[in-house]
Amino acid sequence: MSWLPSLKTATPEEGYSLAIKMSRMAVKMTQPDDEIRSKLRADYANNADSLTMASHVVATNFQTVAQANNFWIQS
Amino acid sequence: MSWLPSLKTATPEEGYSLAIKMSRMAVKMTQPDDEIRSKLRADYANNADSLTMASHVVATNFQTVAQANNFWIQS
Amino acid sequence: MSWLPSLKTATPEEGYSLAIKMSRMAVKMTQPDDEIRSKLRADYANNADSLTMASHVVATNFQTVAQANNFWIQS
Amino acid sequence: MSWLPSLKTATPEEGYSLAIKMSRMAVKMTQPDDEIRSKLRADYANNADSLTMASHVVATNFQTVAQANNFWIQS
Amino acid sequence: MSWLPSLKTATPEEGYSLAIKMSRMAVKMTQPDDEIRSKLRADYANNADSLTMASHVVATNFQTVAQANNFWIQS
Amino acid sequence: MSWLPSLKTATPEEGYSLAIKMSRMAVKMTQPDDEIRSKLRADYANNADSLTMASHVVATNFQTVAQANNFWIQS
Repeated sequence: MSWLPSLKTATPEEGYSLAIKMSRMAVKMTQPDDEIRSKLRADYANNADSLTMASHVVATNFQTVAQANNFWIQS
Repeated sequence: MSWLPSLKTATPEEGYSLAIKMSRMAVKMTQPDDEIRSKLRADYANNADSLTMASHVVATNFQTVAQANNFWIQS
Repeated sequence: MSWLPSLKTATPEEGYSLAIKMSRMAVKMTQPDDEIRSKLRADYANNADSLTMASHVVATNFQTVAQANNFWIQS
Repeated sequence: MSWLPSLKTATPEEGYSLAIKMSRMAVKMTQPDDEIRSKLRADYANNADSLTMASHVVATNFQTVAQANNFWIQS
Repeated sequence: MSWLPSLKTATPEEGYSLAIKMSRMAVKMTQPDDEIRSKLRADYANNADSLTMASHVVATNFQTVAQANNFWIQS
Repeated sequence: MSWLPSLKTATPEEGYSLAIKMSRMAVKMTQPDDEIRSKLRADYANNADSLTMASHVVATNFQTVAQANNFWIQS
């Protein structure tokens, strides 16, 4: 089963969740050790700039997902 | 009720507010503790570079919202 | 009166000014205290990297404004 | 054989892998020494912000790959 | 005379020069003092990361200029 | 002879090389001294985050080049 079978989602909110998943996947592929990632998460979840940087990655991925879904506009 | 039912807004200003909401949501999903986020906010709201970084995330999300609304151009 | 009634501007230069306004608005909404912002401004206006970061946000917002105006191409 | 013969991929997941490859290639072209890159990798794989920055580059490249594949939408 | 009368340029190279001009203008509007900017320039022109950041802003503005010129494709 | 006569390239790989060239040109225009750039290069080629930042600029320029080439899709 692919972790990214499609960029299509039913709603914008699900699209946003997918963007978060995509943002985390690049991290996971670079640092596959769950324990280390968990420790790092504790660090950056308590640092304002780290959280802002993470939000920027999500925003970039969400652009892609939103385009793939034609912005969820009913035609 | 979804926090992001649609990317459509009536005006550019409302679209900008939505972009801010989207930018904060990624932070909230990574750091769900309201008290910690509130403390972090006090930090970055007094740091020029932190504020610029936050504005960059909003700009990225606003691109998506503006496209979804066809830039609010009357047809 | 909305601070962002439209993304349309008569000229590219006015569009660039609007992009600056948009970039500052996210900062203002996060740090509404005029005095604190004024103090922070003194800091980042004297730091090369801070100015570059600010210019990046303007560039991102200008992309949106330029698209909304179809790049001010006469049709 | 080109390392980038095409931006076309069969699936979104393969497209994401290509985006990772593209992100690493710029690094490799700047620092061609395998040993040094391997050492640097150990550094940034244990730093939360470094991983977030890397994920941002992947997200930017994935935008390009996704567009090249028309978001893998079946027509 | 406007500093940005149009996004149209005759060639890609002129478009790149315009992108550099646009990137510097945001800095100038934030720090209008020529002497201070000149001093800051000496700093960041000798710092690798500062130069990379500046190049990123130019890349972002060049995207806009290139789109405005339909990538200088002869039709 | 222009350093950027066209954004058109025969292949994606050549397009990626062009994106690298464009990324370096902004640096060169800000710091024209070859010796200083060479020294700075030694610094950032041994720093993981510096390399990631450089890769981000390449990714941004590659978006532009890929669009100019319609993603090298055979029609």
